[in-house]
Amino acid sequence: MNYLAPLEHRYSVKKFNDHKVPKETLERILKAGQLTASSLGLQPYKLYILESKESLDKAAAAFYNKSQISTCSHLILITAKTTLEDDYIERYFNQITEVRNVPRESLEGFKTSIQGHRTKLGSDNIIHWSEKQAYIVLGHLIMASALEQVDTSPMEGFNVESLAELLSLDLTVERPAVTLALGYRAEDDVFSTFKKVRKPNDKLLTYL
Amino acid sequence: MNYLAPLEHRYSVKKFNDHKVPKETLERILKAGQLTASSLGLQPYKLYILESKESLDKAAAAFYNKSQISTCSHLILITAKTTLEDDYIERYFNQITEVRNVPRESLEGFKTSIQGHRTKLGSDNIIHWSEKQAYIVLGHLIMASALEQVDTSPMEGFNVESLAELLSLDLTVERPAVTLALGYRAEDDVFSTFKKVRKPNDKLLTYL
Repeated sequence: MNYLAPLEHRYSVKKFNDHKVPKETLERILKAGQLTASSLGLQPYKLYILESKESLDKAAAAFYNKSQISTCSHLILITAKTTLEDDYIERYFNQITEVRNVPRESLEGFKTSIQGHRTKLGSDNIIHWSEKQAYIVLGHLIMASALEQVDTSPMEGFNVESLAELLSLDLTVERPAVTLALGYRAEDDVFSTFKKVRKPNDKLLTYL
Repeated sequence: MNYLAPLEHRYSVKKFNDHKVPKETLERILKAGQLTASSLGLQPYKLYILESKESLDKAAAAFYNKSQISTCSHLILITAKTTLEDDYIERYFNQITEVRNVPRESLEGFKTSIQGHRTKLGSDNIIHWSEKQAYIVLGHLIMASALEQVDTSPMEGFNVESLAELLSLDLTVERPAVTLALGYRAEDDVFSTFKKVRKPNDKLLTYL
């Protein structure tokens, strides 16, 4: 499976054309996001898919560069959990018990690990941990999109508080971590002609 | 390109068999890591590939669960930059100028953006920003491995200070962010039989 050619073709689009990403394609890309690995399997994130013109227009106000938002087909916002509540962990264990059909008692050791991890992190660092997990999802979404010949633009350049307010998100529960605009590159997006700049192997990789 | 079946097949391996990942396969997976998007293109990370038994044995002491380290073919450690020095930015701009054959002056606006971004982040948050970028790489490495039918185990469960000391890394420059063990699942790894537990769409996705 040649996944390198699509990754070489990929770049962060600044201007999309007016084609919409088909529903089935979008659903496969999102499925790649759902299947992402996460720390302790806790998936401490949510994905908001802005597809209506109204939502996109509303969100645009929070972004420093608006050309991707105003031209993209869809914008995916990944939010990261700010806390790891007992209830949330409990629901996770209920789901494991159900999906794997295992006795709840057999999971006690794992539950103790999770609680230990939470204590070790400390409440101030939960957000950093969950944001990192959100970025694994981002990696999957970008790569799945490239394989679907869907162009993307990952963006961190937004005002977190404004975006949360515009989309009625509760910052005590979740925090906008990163966004990914999806669509198809416009023919006149000059950025599509730029050569990729990447650290050469001798600066990026060390074999030990 | 069916990338969902390999992602469904993927799980976080706890015990690998004794097959080594071929050099060419590993190089393609690492290339997918190199091609990852990063904030402002700054790629604030490095990848250490532990392949010798000596290095793996040495690193194992820093991990809470050692079964993956003692059985994997390779362990990739991604470190994140703790600072964003003027020199580093300068080298990045030298590379852009060279690769794209553009006059240095034409990049001044972009350079100002980067400096503004650094100021806005503040020195304490550089590490969080660079760790997030490292996790996009992780997402690519996991997915590329799945497409190569190489099994993986992403791991955060190590002592950062110990691992840095064991591998002679300078924590004032870079910080171990996350690791990915690569290899092939052992036949008797009981975890390979467990059903995946993932948030259903109605808990993970919201369309706006």
